[in-house]
Formats: sequence, C-alpha cells, structure tokens
Amino acid sequence: MSFETTATIASFGGKLLKLAHQARSTSCQMKLNLYLPPNASASKPAPVLIYLAGLTCTGDNGAEKGFFQNMASKKGIAIVYPDTSPRGLNIEGEDESYDFGSGAGFYVDATAEPWKHGYRMYTYITEELPHALFGEFKELDGKRVSITGHSMGGHGALTLFLKNPGKYKSVSAFAPITNPMKCPWGEKAFSGYFGKDDHKRWAEHDATELISHFKGDTDILIDVGTGDNFYKQGQLLPENFEKAAKAAGKKVTVRYQDGYDHSYFFISTFADDHLEHAAKHLGV
Amino acid sequence: MSFETTATIASFGGKLLKLAHQARSTSCQMKLNLYLPPNASASKPAPVLIYLAGLTCTGDNGAEKGFFQNMASKKGIAIVYPDTSPRGLNIEGEDESYDFGSGAGFYVDATAEPWKHGYRMYTYITEELPHALFGEFKELDGKRVSITGHSMGGHGALTLFLKNPGKYKSVSAFAPITNPMKCPWGEKAFSGYFGKDDHKRWAEHDATELISHFKGDTDILIDVGTGDNFYKQGQLLPENFEKAAKAAGKKVTVRYQDGYDHSYFFISTFADDHLEHAAKHLGV
Repeated sequence: MSFETTATIASFGGKLLKLAHQARSTSCQMKLNLYLPPNASASKPAPVLIYLAGLTCTGDNGAEKGFFQNMASKKGIAIVYPDTSPRGLNIEGEDESYDFGSGAGFYVDATAEPWKHGYRMYTYITEELPHALFGEFKELDGKRVSITGHSMGGHGALTLFLKNPGKYKSVSAFAPITNPMKCPWGEKAFSGYFGKDDHKRWAEHDATELISHFKGDTDILIDVGTGDNFYKQGQLLPENFEKAAKAAGKKVTVRYQDGYDHSYFFISTFADDHLEHAAKHLGV
Repeated sequence: MSFETTATIASFGGKLLKLAHQARSTSCQMKLNLYLPPNASASKPAPVLIYLAGLTCTGDNGAEKGFFQNMASKKGIAIVYPDTSPRGLNIEGEDESYDFGSGAGFYVDATAEPWKHGYRMYTYITEELPHALFGEFKELDGKRVSITGHSMGGHGALTLFLKNPGKYKSVSAFAPITNPMKCPWGEKAFSGYFGKDDHKRWAEHDATELISHFKGDTDILIDVGTGDNFYKQGQLLPENFEKAAKAAGKKVTVRYQDGYDHSYFFISTFADDHLEHAAKHLGV
C-alpha cells in the first residue's frame, strides 16, 4: 500500500480519507484528502474532481471550508484535495514567503537551483499522484477526471488542462491567476522556479498564453468576485484570459460575482455550480 | 452604534458581518458573526437562528465550517454566531484548560469566585446580545428566534430553550452535552462556575433535569454520531435525555448517525436538516 490512511471521516454520506504517501517527484511525504462519495465501489467507480488549492493552503482547506462534498455526494463524484507544495525539504528560504516556496508550488516543475530538487508539483499532480491513487483506490475511475482550483490553484487547473489535451474532461476555476507572466505573484514565482529570463518556459505555464494555441474545444467556467482585493490589484487578470480565448475562438465563461471576495466564503457559495459543471462533462 | 462592523463578507447571496461590541455582562469586548440572508430589510425582517458553538470554538467556526448559510439563504433566516466565553479577563487559570474558562463558558452565569466576574454567558446570550442586536439591526425579527448548537453549545441551546418557555420558537442540537451533572465536562465546569456542592444550581442548567419539569410541548431535534469519541466516552449521554423526555411525555427526536464523529464534517452534513427544523417553527 503506497498510502497511509491517517483518518476516515464520515461526510455527506461518504467518506473523507486523510492520506499520506512518500512522493518521488517532490522528494518528501505528501498529505492529501480524498472524498469518496456514497456507493463508490470497484464495480462502479466514481469519476474524480481534483481541487487545487491556493497560496498558503494545504489539502485541508477545501475539504473543510469549500463545501464541495455536498454536491459531490449527490452527483457521486470523488474529490482529490492535494497539498500545494512539497514540505520540509530544508531548502534555504522555503518558508520565508507566503507566495513562494512551501504552500506556493505553483503547479510547475522548477528548473532553477535549488528549487528543482523537489518543487515539482506539475509532475506530482499530473502523473505521480493520479497513478498512485488510481492504482490503489479501485473506487476511483481514473478515466473520468476533471480539475478545478482556487487562485494559484485556479492557475494550476487551467494550465494543467490546457497543457494536457484529453487528460481532463473539464476545467473550472475560482478567482484564478490567469496570466502569471503579467502579475506580481507569477513574476516572483516563475523567476524563482524557472529563472528570471526563461520567458519561453514562463509562457508554457501561463493560461492566457496557452489558450491562444490550444487545439480543440473548451467549455471553461470561471468565477471571480468583484470585491476580491487580489483581482483589484491585478493578480488575477481574467480579462486578459477572456480576450485571448475570444481571439482564439474558445469558449470561456467568466462570471464576475458582485461583491464577493477571495475567501472560502466565495468558494463555498459557488461550489455547487462548479461541481455541476464537472458533472456534466464527467457524464453524471 | 453599539456594534463595530470589522468586515462585511458576501456569502450565498447575503452578507456575513464580523461584529464586535463591549458587553456589560461579560465585562469585555465580545466578537461574533451575523449572517444576513438576501433581501432581509427593516420592512421585511428575517427570523433568527442562534448557533452556539462548542468547547475551544469562537463565533468563527460555525460560520466557516458549519455550512449553515446555504439553507439560511434559501429560507431567508439570519444566523447569529456568538463567541463561547468572555476573553482576556485576566482571571488566573482562565486559559489553562480547553474545557474550562476561555472558550468554555458553558452558557451559565457563574456564581463562584473568581468566575462570577464576567463568566456570565447565560445573561449575555439570553438578554444582552439579543437586546443589542435587535435594537441595532432592524433587518432582524427579534420576535421570531430559534436556537441550536454543538456539543457544549448544544447543552447551551437545550438549557436556554428549556429555561425560557416561549423565548425561542424551536431548539435543535448537534452532539449536545445533555446531562452535564453526570459527565466529566459538566462536573468540572459546574464545580468551577457554581461550586462543588451547589447541585441545586447544577440541576438548573442540566437539560435532562430541566425537561422533566418543562411545561408545554416540545419538538426537539438532536443528531449524534455513533463514531463520536465524546459520545462513546459518556460526555453527551443523549440516552439519559431521551429517557427523561419520554417519562415527561415530551417529543424529542434523537437520530444516531452511523459513523459520524464530533467534527464540523458531521455538523455540515446535517446543517440543512436543522435549518429546516428551525424554519418550520419560525414560519418560513
């Protein structure tokens, strides 16, 4: 068994499992939460929604405050809540900033020293974690997977979807960082993980750049609160993403939610809509 | 204005207000959360549900993790989330235990030294707070109020309801301490707040004692998880409450929820049911 189950918690008729496993890609033990809806079984495996959390978060925030389990239970969808970075790698400075290093892996594989030794959340989320999970939990249907996320995790969801055509049935995001090359959070993270000048690689992890070249159809749902201070500060830039999508003829629906902020009060309010969006594409 | 509004947060179409005010009964500043559903107004004030939290909690836990705002928004019910004790009174030992002193006011007015100077949550919740809130927030209908709570707060909800016939339209509880005279948490708290030997006063704050003498009808909803370690340890004793209610001819519905624990994962799962129970009695 590659996963240790540290707790099993009843939630909305299903089970929330607190899991831990040794991950090669990130060179450390990774924790996560896995929600199994009622009646998921090896003979009737549940489709899966991956929820990528934002800066400072772990796999716990979404499970405790996002309120995804309610509709996931009704729809019969499993939810995977991974952590947002490696932990405890003893890299100098890894715990100094809220927006870089631990809690801020940005869902990329770092290429710059010293971060390339473990800050490889792209490989962890797209390959190692699903491979391990779907191998061990036969209640999960690894062929029907969608992805969503919040803020940095919204960036993760959008870029992982756009970089891997066919891997995910759908994508949605809450207040995502959609154009990291053009915002302070993204500039800091990409400078650190890729180096200041490797803008070609930066573009490979920028949703606004990626959607311009994406082959195939999209049906992307994004919610952004108009009272979100990070939106106001230009960290999210959803207008840039909308404009690029429109130019490329891709379907993107950005809903500007009046007065909502960046918190889990915002996420929980619209969680049902994102579950229903995923459910539609997952065929449930 | 007796309340300071430190934040206004959009949630499920309504507003969550973070409030603070100076309270005479508890001799300190008290913080709380107030959820106003959409469309509540002075001309159409919303009925109110008070949610009393459990040991170690503040007014934030229920608002963040209880998931009451979803159904409250749909039903047009306001929710008041008070704190669980006075804070910062500088009484020796007030922060030493998780189950006594700060975070553990037990919704009683202490009579023993030194706690009687400020540990007066009974008067705060039944008189001072509603008087101040309903005086200032004309969106609230102070004539239609129900009460609920979790664990120590379930004890609070049951005893405040049973001690004040007609004050609350209904009561429900999640994993309540129903017979505090007979459990370690209650014995410790009542010994401290009332003195070891004043068992007459203990009985005045024990739901199982109170229901035996209650005049009038009841329709009390209680959920308890069978996987709740505090239930297993005999801290909650719902069977004692059921037995006393039955002997007194009072309607009490205790639902033993298979495998659920004592956490907010349990509460959020059944929050809708408790909102609907209150809504029925509040006439919405």
